[in-house]
Amino acid sequence: MKNTFGSSVCVTVFGESHGRAIGAVIDGLCPGITVDIEKINGALAKRRPSSNIDTSRREKDEFEILSGVFNGKTTGTPICIVIPNGDTKSADYEKTRFLARPSHADYTSFCKYHGYEDYRGGGHFSGRITAAIVAAGAIISSALDNIGVKIGTHILKCASVSDREFCNVDGDLEILKGKTFPVLSDCEKAMEDEIIKAKSDLDSVGGILQTAITGVPAGVGEPWFDSVESILSHALFSVGGIKGIEFGKGFALSGMRGSQANDAFCMKDGKVTTVTNNNGGILGGITNGMPIIFNCAVKPTPSIAKEQDTVDFSANENAKINIQGRHDPAIIRRACPVVESVTAIAICDMIAERYGTDVFLNGDKI
Amino acid sequence: MKNTFGSSVCVTVFGESHGRAIGAVIDGLCPGITVDIEKINGALAKRRPSSNIDTSRREKDEFEILSGVFNGKTTGTPICIVIPNGDTKSADYEKTRFLARPSHADYTSFCKYHGYEDYRGGGHFSGRITAAIVAAGAIISSALDNIGVKIGTHILKCASVSDREFCNVDGDLEILKGKTFPVLSDCEKAMEDEIIKAKSDLDSVGGILQTAITGVPAGVGEPWFDSVESILSHALFSVGGIKGIEFGKGFALSGMRGSQANDAFCMKDGKVTTVTNNNGGILGGITNGMPIIFNCAVKPTPSIAKEQDTVDFSANENAKINIQGRHDPAIIRRACPVVESVTAIAICDMIAERYGTDVFLNGDKI
Amino acid sequence: MKNTFGSSVCVTVFGESHGRAIGAVIDGLCPGITVDIEKINGALAKRRPSSNIDTSRREKDEFEILSGVFNGKTTGTPICIVIPNGDTKSADYEKTRFLARPSHADYTSFCKYHGYEDYRGGGHFSGRITAAIVAAGAIISSALDNIGVKIGTHILKCASVSDREFCNVDGDLEILKGKTFPVLSDCEKAMEDEIIKAKSDLDSVGGILQTAITGVPAGVGEPWFDSVESILSHALFSVGGIKGIEFGKGFALSGMRGSQANDAFCMKDGKVTTVTNNNGGILGGITNGMPIIFNCAVKPTPSIAKEQDTVDFSANENAKINIQGRHDPAIIRRACPVVESVTAIAICDMIAERYGTDVFLNGDKI
Amino acid sequence: MKNTFGSSVCVTVFGESHGRAIGAVIDGLCPGITVDIEKINGALAKRRPSSNIDTSRREKDEFEILSGVFNGKTTGTPICIVIPNGDTKSADYEKTRFLARPSHADYTSFCKYHGYEDYRGGGHFSGRITAAIVAAGAIISSALDNIGVKIGTHILKCASVSDREFCNVDGDLEILKGKTFPVLSDCEKAMEDEIIKAKSDLDSVGGILQTAITGVPAGVGEPWFDSVESILSHALFSVGGIKGIEFGKGFALSGMRGSQANDAFCMKDGKVTTVTNNNGGILGGITNGMPIIFNCAVKPTPSIAKEQDTVDFSANENAKINIQGRHDPAIIRRACPVVESVTAIAICDMIAERYGTDVFLNGDKI
Repeated sequence: MKNTFGSSVCVTVFGESHGRAIGAVIDGLCPGITVDIEKINGALAKRRPSSNIDTSRREKDEFEILSGVFNGKTTGTPICIVIPNGDTKSADYEKTRFLARPSHADYTSFCKYHGYEDYRGGGHFSGRITAAIVAAGAIISSALDNIGVKIGTHILKCASVSDREFCNVDGDLEILKGKTFPVLSDCEKAMEDEIIKAKSDLDSVGGILQTAITGVPAGVGEPWFDSVESILSHALFSVGGIKGIEFGKGFALSGMRGSQANDAFCMKDGKVTTVTNNNGGILGGITNGMPIIFNCAVKPTPSIAKEQDTVDFSANENAKINIQGRHDPAIIRRACPVVESVTAIAICDMIAERYGTDVFLNGDKI
Repeated sequence: MKNTFGSSVCVTVFGESHGRAIGAVIDGLCPGITVDIEKINGALAKRRPSSNIDTSRREKDEFEILSGVFNGKTTGTPICIVIPNGDTKSADYEKTRFLARPSHADYTSFCKYHGYEDYRGGGHFSGRITAAIVAAGAIISSALDNIGVKIGTHILKCASVSDREFCNVDGDLEILKGKTFPVLSDCEKAMEDEIIKAKSDLDSVGGILQTAITGVPAGVGEPWFDSVESILSHALFSVGGIKGIEFGKGFALSGMRGSQANDAFCMKDGKVTTVTNNNGGILGGITNGMPIIFNCAVKPTPSIAKEQDTVDFSANENAKINIQGRHDPAIIRRACPVVESVTAIAICDMIAERYGTDVFLNGDKI
Repeated sequence: MKNTFGSSVCVTVFGESHGRAIGAVIDGLCPGITVDIEKINGALAKRRPSSNIDTSRREKDEFEILSGVFNGKTTGTPICIVIPNGDTKSADYEKTRFLARPSHADYTSFCKYHGYEDYRGGGHFSGRITAAIVAAGAIISSALDNIGVKIGTHILKCASVSDREFCNVDGDLEILKGKTFPVLSDCEKAMEDEIIKAKSDLDSVGGILQTAITGVPAGVGEPWFDSVESILSHALFSVGGIKGIEFGKGFALSGMRGSQANDAFCMKDGKVTTVTNNNGGILGGITNGMPIIFNCAVKPTPSIAKEQDTVDFSANENAKINIQGRHDPAIIRRACPVVESVTAIAICDMIAERYGTDVFLNGDKI
Repeated sequence: MKNTFGSSVCVTVFGESHGRAIGAVIDGLCPGITVDIEKINGALAKRRPSSNIDTSRREKDEFEILSGVFNGKTTGTPICIVIPNGDTKSADYEKTRFLARPSHADYTSFCKYHGYEDYRGGGHFSGRITAAIVAAGAIISSALDNIGVKIGTHILKCASVSDREFCNVDGDLEILKGKTFPVLSDCEKAMEDEIIKAKSDLDSVGGILQTAITGVPAGVGEPWFDSVESILSHALFSVGGIKGIEFGKGFALSGMRGSQANDAFCMKDGKVTTVTNNNGGILGGITNGMPIIFNCAVKPTPSIAKEQDTVDFSANENAKINIQGRHDPAIIRRACPVVESVTAIAICDMIAERYGTDVFLNGDKI
C-alpha cells in the first residue's frame, strides 16, 4: 500500500484537509496494550495550533476509535481512528485552484492525480493528516512503554537560535516530557521572537529537530536495505517539510578523520557500550544498544503572506499568487510530536520484526 | 524480504566478503532491455580499488549472469548475477574474531545473529557486497536510458576539499561520464593529497557525495510514506558509511526564510519549471520535473591502522585492537558508482510503480 | 499488513461484529473513477439478509465515505468507507464467552489474541466484515467496468441441488445481473426448499459457487508464486466458510488424460483462443484471454440450533453448547456478492500490477 | 517481488530450463540452523526422474551454496543455492518456437514477455525450477524439525487408482518417510500400471496429492486475507499443474449439513482437540492445533506424444503440433517433494510471522 508504513506493525493514513475526516488504521499491534485516551489527547494537544505563532485554524481533534479496542485494550485486530474535520474554509482555495503555491504540492499532485485531487487546503498532502499520525503514534507508544523504549524530540534550532544537543539522554528525555515547546536549554523565548518577527515580515522560518530513542536492545535492524537508518528515514521523509536527516554526528562526520569519528567500545556496568556515540546508536544498520540519535532539517513553512511568482498550471502561463488561507509562520514546534509519532511507529515495527508481535505484551522476552 | 529493495522492480543481494561468491537477483525488470556486458564491466571498474588511495585487495569481479537474459536481452524473469570471491585473506580476521572493530558491524551482527555470522572481512556487511549492487545498477540503468533518465554522482567534498555544486545539470552529467575520480572542478589532486596524508597518519577521511537525476517526469512518488525522499533515502542508507542525506538545499533550508527557500514557478519553453531548485526536484514527496538533487554524507572509513580501544565481546572485557586486513583510507571515490547504482535501482522502481513495468520497453508512453 | 489484500490496489478491512463500525480502506485505486452510490447500495443489498432463509439480524448498511472521493470521483488517495453497526445483541454472546462454537473461530482467536479479542458475534472474524468488502468491491468494479472486465457468480450447487455450469459466459453474466438469488437455470425454488428444510431440522447447508471473469487480456499474472490462481485463491480463502477452490475443471482434471484435459488452440475472429476451457483461462499462472472460471466450496454455516459437544477453553473441560444468536441456515446466497467483490479486488490489483495504476482511467491502453 | 514467496522467511526462485543454472535465494531464515547436505540431496533425489514413468532428461542436480552458510550452519543472511543445468536439448524447441503447446505456458508467456522470453523447454515456467524449490524446502525443513513440525505428502489418487486417506497422521507420516513413490496403502503397482498404459497410448495422467502437517501450535494465521488457507494456496498454486486445492473435507463439506460438518471439540490429555477434523486443522483461517490436511488436484502432464491442434501465434494461423522433447507421462510422483517443499516454505514463514524469526533457534519458546 502506498499510504502505509510498516511490515509487522503497520499504519495507514487516509483523509483530506477539507474532507469529512482524516484517520489512520493501525494493524499488527499486539493484543492487550492499554489504549490511554488521555495520552492520545495529550499528544494531539501538543500538535494542535494554540498560540499566535501557529495557524488560526482551530480543530478540536475529537477522535473516535471505530475498531480494534475492547474493554480499553487492543484486541490485536486493526484499530481504525477517525478525526472529523471541522474548521474548514474551503472557499479560500477555490480562487487559487490552478495557481501552484511555491514549494507546495499543488502542481505535483495535479501531475500525479490528473486534476482529480481534492485541492482544498492541500488535500491529502496537508499537514492536517499528521493529526492521525500523532493519534496512531500515541497508541503505539504504549506498546513501547511496555518494553522500556522512550522517544523524545526537541527543537535543536529554530531560525538562527540553537538549543543545546542531547547529552545525558535519559535525563534530557525527562526534561522534555509534557513540554509543548520542547527545548532543553533556556531558548524558547528567543525562538518565539524569531517566529513572530518572521510573521510580521509576512514570512516564515524553519529549523532542525533532534530526536533520541532509548531502550532499544542491540541487534535490531537489517544489513542491506532495511537498516535502522533506512527504515527511520523512510518514515520521517514522508513528513512534509523534512528535507534532510542525519544520524549521530551525520554531516559533521564527513569532515572528521576515522580516529575522531570512530566510537571506541568499552565495558560499562558489565555491558558493552561506546565511549562516544558519533554513529547515533547504529552500526552497519543495526542498533548497538546506545541511544539512537538523529536530526531532521525542516524547511520554512512554504505558505507565506508575501506575493510570490508562480504559474497557472491550467492555462500554462505565468501568474502571481497571494496566499490567503491560515498558516503557521513556523511548523517546527508542531512538528515535534509528529516526528516522535513517526519514530514510534517505525521503531515499533522494527522491534516487532525482530522479536515477534507479542513482544510488547510479554516485555520480559527481550 | 530483508535484503531486497523495491516493489515493482526489486533487487536482492546475497553473499559474504570471504564466502564463495556475492551476487544479486533483479526481479520485475521489463523484458527486452539490452544487457550490455561492457557497461557492467565499466561500472564495476569504477568501483574497483585501483590505486594507492584504495585497499590492496584486488578482485577481478568476473561476473556470471545465470538467468533472465536471453539473446543479449532481459527476458522479464529474474536475473541472477554472481561474482565469485577470489582474493580473500581470511586468516587476518581469525585472531580478532571477538574484538569489535570500532564503528564497524562486528558487535551488532554478533548481537543480531547470535555468533553464527560469517565474521571474516565483515561478512554480509562488507562493502564487497556493493559490487553486486553496482552490477545490478548497471543493468537497470539501461532501462532508464530507454526513457531518457540520467544519473550522476560527484565528490562534493573530501576531507576539507570542496568541489563546486551542480549548476547546469545536463552539462555537468556529461562532464562526469566515464570519470573514475568524479569531480566537476579541478580538485582531484587536492582531494587525493588529503587521502594520502590521512593514510600516512594511519588514519582515514570521509566526504560528501552529490547526485543528480534528470529526465524523471513530474508526478512520480507518493504523498505519505513512499515519498521520493523516503524511497531514495531508504535505499541509500543501506550503503555502509552513509550517515546523512539531504535533498535540494537540505539542512541549509532550515536556516532560510520561506521567501528565500521557496522555489518560484515560471513557464519555460511552454513547460512548468521552477526558477530555483532548493527543493531538489521534489515537492510534497512527488517529482516536479526539475532535476532531483541530493547529498549523502559519508563517514571516514572505520578501519584505520592506529591502535584503538575496544572490547572483546565474547569475554566481555576491555581490549585493544590493531586492525590488520586491507582497507581504503577513503571510500568516497569508490562510493560514487555505488550511490549511482542504488539511485538507479530506486528510481527505476518508482517509475515502474507509476507507469507499469513495460514503460521502459515502450519509452514513448510517459 | 495482515488485514490488507493487494500490491498495487490494496484493500484493508477493519471492525468487529458488535463494535462501533466496520469498514475498509482502498488504496492505490486510480483517480477519476466514478463512485456510484447506488451501485454500492445495490451490492450491499444483495449481501443483506432479507428473507426467512437468512439471519434475522437486520443492518441498514448506511455507509459513509470519509476520504478519497471528491466531486463524485476517486481522487487517487485512500478511500475510507465506514459502515456503522446497529442491530447488535451482544448479550447473546456473554454467557457462551468461553464455549468454543464448533467450526467457528472462537477457540483459534482466543489462542491467537490471548483472550483480548472482541468475542461478541465472532468479533473481527464475523461475516459482518464482508459488508465492507462488498462496498469496496463495488467501488473497484467501476474501475473494471472502464476497461470492460466483467465478473459474475452463481450458486452452482446448494445442498444436493445443482445449477447448470457457465456455457455462453457473456450471455450468462447478463442473466445473473441484478439477481439476488443468482442461478442460471430454474433451480431457485428447489434450493430454497433445501435450506428451509435444514432450518426446520435446526441444521444448515453448504454449497458451491461458480465465478466467471471476462475481459481480462492475455498476459496477466506471474509465473512463480503470484500466479492468477495464487492471487485469486489467496483473496478468496480469506472468506470464512470457503474450504476449496478449483480453476477450470479443477479436481475433475485430475482424473482425465492429457488428451482430454488439454485445451487445443484455434484462431477465432483473428484472435488466439482455445476450443475448450478446461484450464479456466489460466496457463502457467498467466491469463490466456479466455474467461477465467473457478469454483469455491462453501461449508455449511457452523452456527446451528442443535445442541453440540464442545469445550470450555477457560476451564479446559468438556461442555455442551446451544447456540442462540441469529444465524443463516445457508450463507451460500449471501456469499455470492462477497466472492464477486473479493474477485474484483484481486483482479483489479493484478491488472494494475501489469499495466500501471492509471490503466483504468485510460482504458484504451490495454 | 514477483518470484518471491514469504514475508518473514522468503524464497525467491530464478532460472530457465535451458539456461546456465536455476536456483533460489532464502532470506530471513534464522541463524544457527544446520544445513544438511545429505538431506538436500535426498529431497532432490525424490524429485529426480528415475524410471520409465518419468522424463528421460537426467539432471545430476549438483547444487552449490554460494552464501548464507558458515561452518555448516545458516548465518541468518541470504542463502543462495545454485543448480547448474546440464542435460539440455534446446534444438528440440527451436522448430516449435511459435507453436503453442496446448495447456502449456508458451502462448501466455509470449503475451506477457512480448517474445523476449527464453522459450526453450518452457524457460522460467519449466518444472525444472522446482528443483530449486525442493532444495530450499529441504533447508527450511531443518528449521521446522527444530520445533517439531512435520510434513508429508502422498499420492491420494493417480488416474483412477486411489490410496487411502490419512487416518493416524503421526504414524502415516512415518510410513511415508524416505519413500520415492509415496503411498499409504498397497497401490503403487496399480498406479504405475496406469501411468505406463497412458504412456503407451501416447498420453498422460493426473492425480490428487494429500498433505498433512503436524506440530503447528494453535493460533497461527490471520483472520482476513492471510488465513492459513490463503497462504498455503497462494504458495501451492504457483506449482504448475495444480488446479484445485481443498482443506479438510473441502468440496465434500459443501454437500454436508452443519451437524455433520462441524468438528465437535473435546478435551484429550488435557488439551483442546476436535473429535473429527473436517476443517483440516484450520478455523477462521487460524490453526487449531489439529493436523493441517489438504488435497491438491494435479492435471495430467500437458506434454503428450499425440498430435494436437494448436496455433502458430507468430503467424496467427491454425497449426498441428507433435511434441518431441522429453516428458513425464505423469508428474504426480515427482510433484510430492515439490508440494512438501512449498508447504515447508509457507508454514515456516507463517510461524516466523507469529513468533519472530529466532523461534526456530530457540524451539522452546512456542
